[in-house]
Amino acid sequence: MQLMVTYLYLMAFFSQSIGDYWSERRSLVSNENAQMLGSNVELNKKERIVNEYLMNLKFSEFDEGFDTPSNFLPSRHFFQARRSIEKSPVFKFIRDMPKGGALHGHSSALLSFEGLYNITREKNLHACSFNDKLRLKFMLTPAQDPLCKWQLVHDLRKANKSYDNWLRSQLTLDSDNPRGTYRDINQVWSTFSKIFATVKSMITYRPVFEQYVYQALKELNDDRVMYAEIRGSFPALYELNGTVYTRTESAAILHGAVAAFQRDHVNFYGARYIYAPHRKVNNSVAKYYVDTVNELHNLYPNFILGFDLVGQEDKGDPLFKFIEILQSISKNVSLVFHAAETNWYGTSSDFNLFDAVLLGTKRIGHGFGLTKHPHLMRLIKEKNIAIEVCPISNQVLMLVQDLRNHPAAFLIGRGFPIVVSYDDPTFWSSKGLSYDFYMMFMGIASRNADLKLLKKLAENSLTYSLLPEREKAAVIKQWNKMWNEFIDLAYRNILNYGKIWH
Amino acid sequence: MQLMVTYLYLMAFFSQSIGDYWSERRSLVSNENAQMLGSNVELNKKERIVNEYLMNLKFSEFDEGFDTPSNFLPSRHFFQARRSIEKSPVFKFIRDMPKGGALHGHSSALLSFEGLYNITREKNLHACSFNDKLRLKFMLTPAQDPLCKWQLVHDLRKANKSYDNWLRSQLTLDSDNPRGTYRDINQVWSTFSKIFATVKSMITYRPVFEQYVYQALKELNDDRVMYAEIRGSFPALYELNGTVYTRTESAAILHGAVAAFQRDHVNFYGARYIYAPHRKVNNSVAKYYVDTVNELHNLYPNFILGFDLVGQEDKGDPLFKFIEILQSISKNVSLVFHAAETNWYGTSSDFNLFDAVLLGTKRIGHGFGLTKHPHLMRLIKEKNIAIEVCPISNQVLMLVQDLRNHPAAFLIGRGFPIVVSYDDPTFWSSKGLSYDFYMMFMGIASRNADLKLLKKLAENSLTYSLLPEREKAAVIKQWNKMWNEFIDLAYRNILNYGKIWH
Repeated sequence: MQLMVTYLYLMAFFSQSIGDYWSERRSLVSNENAQMLGSNVELNKKERIVNEYLMNLKFSEFDEGFDTPSNFLPSRHFFQARRSIEKSPVFKFIRDMPKGGALHGHSSALLSFEGLYNITREKNLHACSFNDKLRLKFMLTPAQDPLCKWQLVHDLRKANKSYDNWLRSQLTLDSDNPRGTYRDINQVWSTFSKIFATVKSMITYRPVFEQYVYQALKELNDDRVMYAEIRGSFPALYELNGTVYTRTESAAILHGAVAAFQRDHVNFYGARYIYAPHRKVNNSVAKYYVDTVNELHNLYPNFILGFDLVGQEDKGDPLFKFIEILQSISKNVSLVFHAAETNWYGTSSDFNLFDAVLLGTKRIGHGFGLTKHPHLMRLIKEKNIAIEVCPISNQVLMLVQDLRNHPAAFLIGRGFPIVVSYDDPTFWSSKGLSYDFYMMFMGIASRNADLKLLKKLAENSLTYSLLPEREKAAVIKQWNKMWNEFIDLAYRNILNYGKIWH
Repeated sequence: MQLMVTYLYLMAFFSQSIGDYWSERRSLVSNENAQMLGSNVELNKKERIVNEYLMNLKFSEFDEGFDTPSNFLPSRHFFQARRSIEKSPVFKFIRDMPKGGALHGHSSALLSFEGLYNITREKNLHACSFNDKLRLKFMLTPAQDPLCKWQLVHDLRKANKSYDNWLRSQLTLDSDNPRGTYRDINQVWSTFSKIFATVKSMITYRPVFEQYVYQALKELNDDRVMYAEIRGSFPALYELNGTVYTRTESAAILHGAVAAFQRDHVNFYGARYIYAPHRKVNNSVAKYYVDTVNELHNLYPNFILGFDLVGQEDKGDPLFKFIEILQSISKNVSLVFHAAETNWYGTSSDFNLFDAVLLGTKRIGHGFGLTKHPHLMRLIKEKNIAIEVCPISNQVLMLVQDLRNHPAAFLIGRGFPIVVSYDDPTFWSSKGLSYDFYMMFMGIASRNADLKLLKKLAENSLTYSLLPEREKAAVIKQWNKMWNEFIDLAYRNILNYGKIWH
């Protein structure tokens, strides 16, 4: 009897101790999960059904990667993975999902690569190559240029079968083309900047520009993105007759192109502009930037909303060089600085984070180095500054190879306000936000991150827009409606057909 | 006059606002720096001079990388960078620096590759290959084996000039050899495990084993490491006459080999053992492990101090499978679990972190996924659990390519107790701790991290050892003496010669 009691006592003790273990473990895990971005999103019944369906798709694809890591798409280079991503059911789900706004995209690289390439087929486009630099420009007759022989692209194409391939290779970083792989970040950036220069002279022909803007917004709209904030520096538009527009006139033309698109697409909320000239300049140019943005904002107070500086941070000038000048930007213009788009810890580019925050930035472009700075992270959370994460850009521009190592994972785990964006989709043959959302969901976030995260990311992209509060409420309301319609349809399809997005 | 007053007023306001900016910036940066690992180390006058010298070396090498990233050694694969690292003045400084203890190394891969390869020249070593697996074993006459033809390595070498190269290729992951590069983490781990099996049968011949242990400790001692905790599972040692020793006898032999080395090297504090068998087992084997470590600890209470499970976590069994069994390990045996040596976020291997902490681990092996878990990070800091970081291992075993993206950067920025270790130096032709310290200092930590970090890392490697408190105090005292001697000599050399470590 004594023995039996001892045995029962021991069993009870043992079970309790084990029971404690598992309950403590559950509480640990749930504490952890409660901090994750999106954890406070409440899903309704339909959303829960859709989520369950989505997570089955995710687990199946994710776990296949866990078993055979070389097949896991976010670990591979986007140039090799793109076509497979397009076949992923999870990607198809994301493509159909209303994703809110595209807050980080540069005006010369917004369009899909094919969209841009189509422009090279327009008539009157001339080309010349000088010092290994391709220039493309619309003109009625070839300009007389002692350094460079201008020819019609149409004629070049006809005369040489390989011209098309070569021309393609000059307009993208994609290693399918002869440029191949890149030695390091400086080399890829140098090619990147060269392409920008080539494209700029082609897309600033006024009729093409209008069509380019229209097409770029259409691609977003088709990708179920309803709002855009475009970074650019208002390059001077031109006409075939030699007219060159002033910056103000160019702004008016852009504004008109956006309006034209909105007239045709009532579900698209609109686009706004962030004046974002190059960072490698002297003080007097910086001063000119500030005057320009203040003036442009006065002219278009509802359209030109923000200021930023662009170009490779490691090679450009750091923010701290321009503090006094930047402090004279009108308080009505929001600062949305690129900062720490770098993996050099403790350098001038890394320290751009400090100045961006001190200058009062509303969002941070990339902030790849942010997680190395715990004190700044705390400040950024307090100030509710959003981080614009562009996963594919960071991979192609060689900050990180395997996207599972992207530092945004730590920001997601800590519930930081993140928005997902596409940066320069043209140059890596991406299109819209879906590819970057896919990387975030499959590669960067936890296996367990679900529809709550996706919903939060979409919502964030409107919450952290530069729109005035009243407009923000309106756009979020509109997005919510689209979201509910999407969920309704998905829910019905799941119930009726069982299998969709396959 | 009014205008002048306004002007002066505005100037004063402007200067003050700018002054505020810079003082706020300084306070931000210093708050950030105060959290960095090593920031609380106080350098004395001599250390400050040495530090200044060291930082000149560091800045010069680091900034060259910033200008030409493809040359930056911690960004390149260790196999390509090793020879250049050996020429780095910073590396030479680190090599001369007393580095404390090596807390994470596996017994079959402790030696430099050349050290191991020398063993293949010992007489009586036989080889046979079966199913693409090489086996090496010492025997007087070739065993009769229907599946595999045993031959003397000496004869094979003589008969075939390319045999040496081939044999080398079977004992290392280094891509200088025909194995080339690896498709993914599973492939590199599979080769890695295969090499372990090949090496094991060679080094368990008792006289070779004794010499192997002696040599492994000598290499540490030469690298100015004074203490080691070795993970292993006491493979059964054997004699040429067919004797096979029991686990207990093998433990005694190992213990003796360590003692022999200590007798000859008074500056070397000693080595301790962590019983660390393979994790992919069923419950009854796990039970046997626990009995074994409890028994071995009873026999060698001052030598066998810890328990761990090894092998690829993604492919092995997770800790949570063995909770009840592991809870019966003697409280006198410290747990030092591998956990989250993975970049799969939210998976069973990632979740090993939760169980390691709940089981009461004293240190965490790798913890590569830790930074994705903010709640766990807080717990780990509260409980003062150290993280064993092995940078080169993580790169070669394909968790991260560019070491600037290693998550330990975030742990350093947050002052987590880190120790640097070498894991399996043989298989990537590393030697001692200097290479891993170099990666930590140059590649993972901030450009501004200095001698304070190095000193802290060395000290941590003793503070977080499994030694009892009294011994710990003794070894730290001994290390302090060595450290001061190192600083004295460095200081004198800097004053007298100006240029050292070049």
